[in-house]
Amino acid sequence: MDSTRGGGRLAELRPYDCWALLAGVQVGRVAWCRPEGPSVVPVNLALVSGALWFRTTLGSALVRECRGQRVAIEVDQVDIPTRSGWSVVVHGVAQVIEDDDVPESLHVLEVWPAGDRTAYVKVEPVDVSGRRLQGAPTG
Amino acid sequence: MDSTRGGGRLAELRPYDCWALLAGVQVGRVAWCRPEGPSVVPVNLALVSGALWFRTTLGSALVRECRGQRVAIEVDQVDIPTRSGWSVVVHGVAQVIEDDDVPESLHVLEVWPAGDRTAYVKVEPVDVSGRRLQGAPTG
Repeated sequence: MDSTRGGGRLAELRPYDCWALLAGVQVGRVAWCRPEGPSVVPVNLALVSGALWFRTTLGSALVRECRGQRVAIEVDQVDIPTRSGWSVVVHGVAQVIEDDDVPESLHVLEVWPAGDRTAYVKVEPVDVSGRRLQGAPTG
Repeated sequence: MDSTRGGGRLAELRPYDCWALLAGVQVGRVAWCRPEGPSVVPVNLALVSGALWFRTTLGSALVRECRGQRVAIEVDQVDIPTRSGWSVVVHGVAQVIEDDDVPESLHVLEVWPAGDRTAYVKVEPVDVSGRRLQGAPTG
């Protein structure tokens, strides 16, 4: 039953490394609190001028329930064969931004699914933390 | 600025497909609500007899704050080159299970990081949903 022996080493990432990893993300997961409990969905993300942005539909639960509320955004990369990876978590308040106030540089945010996603959501990080797991040697 | 055209098709997964995908997972993300807002961390997971299980340290925030509370667990697989993937989200209440009450079949739950993770957490799903994104043809 015990599989804790010989596991990989988990280390905190420096803030610099967290930001560098966030700069390259295309997909992450947004978690928020509903009255009945937490919810989490994957979204396409981009880091623009120090804030994380995503787009969704104006009428979505995400917009209704997140606007002005604290959210957590998690991004990671996992390598199953080597049992290694990293994860960065950002906390901040979700602001829904009108089309006119969306920065030009947001063209880097590419949304994969088809459909009108006219609600731009900006999350200014209030804290950022991350961890890296180095795989244990096998054999 | 508009990247909604020509995107991939997003479709709901049938419950059968959600369960089949959950059966193969090794990593997911647990979201829960803290007084100050949501939090989310990656964990190693296993589906055993219809419940999702993970292990963590007894003194962790996850155990202190999740015990008896509703959590959301998200698992996904993303393929960046084809902009496709799937995601399954499970909601349920987290129960911390004593060592003696952990089923033998839980040996399938392999925890990658080293360290004592003696708290077994079981989440009996109260709802399961998922979506698959088929990549748009390129060119």
